[in-house]
Amino acid sequence: MPESSTSSLRKSQPVAQKRTIGAVLFPEFELLDIFGPLEMLGVLPDYFEIVTLAEHADPVASTQGPQTVIDRIFADPGELDVLLVPGGRGTRREAENPAMLDFLRSTYPKLEYLASICTGSGLLAAAGLLDGRRATSNKKAFAWPQTLSDKVSWIPEARWVEDGNIFTASGVAAGIDMSLALLATLLDDKIARRVAEYTEYDWHRDSSSDPFAKLAGLG
Amino acid sequence: MPESSTSSLRKSQPVAQKRTIGAVLFPEFELLDIFGPLEMLGVLPDYFEIVTLAEHADPVASTQGPQTVIDRIFADPGELDVLLVPGGRGTRREAENPAMLDFLRSTYPKLEYLASICTGSGLLAAAGLLDGRRATSNKKAFAWPQTLSDKVSWIPEARWVEDGNIFTASGVAAGIDMSLALLATLLDDKIARRVAEYTEYDWHRDSSSDPFAKLAGLG
Repeated sequence: MPESSTSSLRKSQPVAQKRTIGAVLFPEFELLDIFGPLEMLGVLPDYFEIVTLAEHADPVASTQGPQTVIDRIFADPGELDVLLVPGGRGTRREAENPAMLDFLRSTYPKLEYLASICTGSGLLAAAGLLDGRRATSNKKAFAWPQTLSDKVSWIPEARWVEDGNIFTASGVAAGIDMSLALLATLLDDKIARRVAEYTEYDWHRDSSSDPFAKLAGLG
Repeated sequence: MPESSTSSLRKSQPVAQKRTIGAVLFPEFELLDIFGPLEMLGVLPDYFEIVTLAEHADPVASTQGPQTVIDRIFADPGELDVLLVPGGRGTRREAENPAMLDFLRSTYPKLEYLASICTGSGLLAAAGLLDGRRATSNKKAFAWPQTLSDKVSWIPEARWVEDGNIFTASGVAAGIDMSLALLATLLDDKIARRVAEYTEYDWHRDSSSDPFAKLAGLG
């Protein structure tokens, strides 16, 4: 990471409010679902502090193997401004885990923004947080979150969907595009563009353009 | 992660050789540098096992904050087939860390492939492993790795560079594109395309197309 560039991303004026970004983890979470968005927000340490949260204090293993250390547990989550919920194979179990659903339900009213990636939207749906809203999810597992609530308007062709203060992204890498849109909302578009350039990421800015929906026969 | 899709990525025949992918970590590594490539390889558990390695056994904190658990230490690395070396602010210190450079030098001759992302190529250069080769690095910190060896042909305009069994990627997100090219080399192009589709990632397949070099005034 270029040092000169890191400082160029910093604000010259003091930041009025530094936000805390909570990353919800559970066994068999999908690596890129969460670490893509955490990269995009995490390169701005003057604006954001990242904390990992899980039901228990032990490190949590991803579907792909690597384990992440947990900073806070659901029973004592502290203050959070934004919560990110990844997908992954573990969502099938977590959608029936009262500790997860209670945490999401009790935390959401205190948040500025809630965002999910991939099948993480299934957890939001299971917690009832998407009722009456538009949302999206992974294109190859699109049927699954629909089984969790019949009160959600699921959008098959979307890179991500914003409805009020809830962002839901499509599969895995779509979370990176969504997180830059979230960043543009939290700060401004110019800094989101600079973060994309800094990370050499080709940001797909059009949330309605979704080639993967077509490939999955949903478009 | 769609379960049906996971199984569709598995080979119907037994895999002759399951490869071990080592992910080298150090304090202040860049999150997406390593977790992008580990996602792409890690969705194929029938082909690859991922292990994290560091100088010491304690969890290692990224530049962005989250800490990763270490599976193996440099002094006892076990068998490794492919080694991935991320960049991040910590590379400035690690380029002068004998434990890191000795590990890279002693491990490389036993590897099938070695790959770096972003300023990780600076560590390979400092270890002398890029001498006589072509390589690339982060576009906003391109001058730094050049200070570490005058025997490397640094390519400014490249999404990634392959030279023999060493792959070097440009900044951060470029590592995802490189890892899919590495996957195509290790297995085949068809499965790399399927992994890109599975992770809803728009794979930039042309290693010579590098808009970020132009943006950084290097193109």
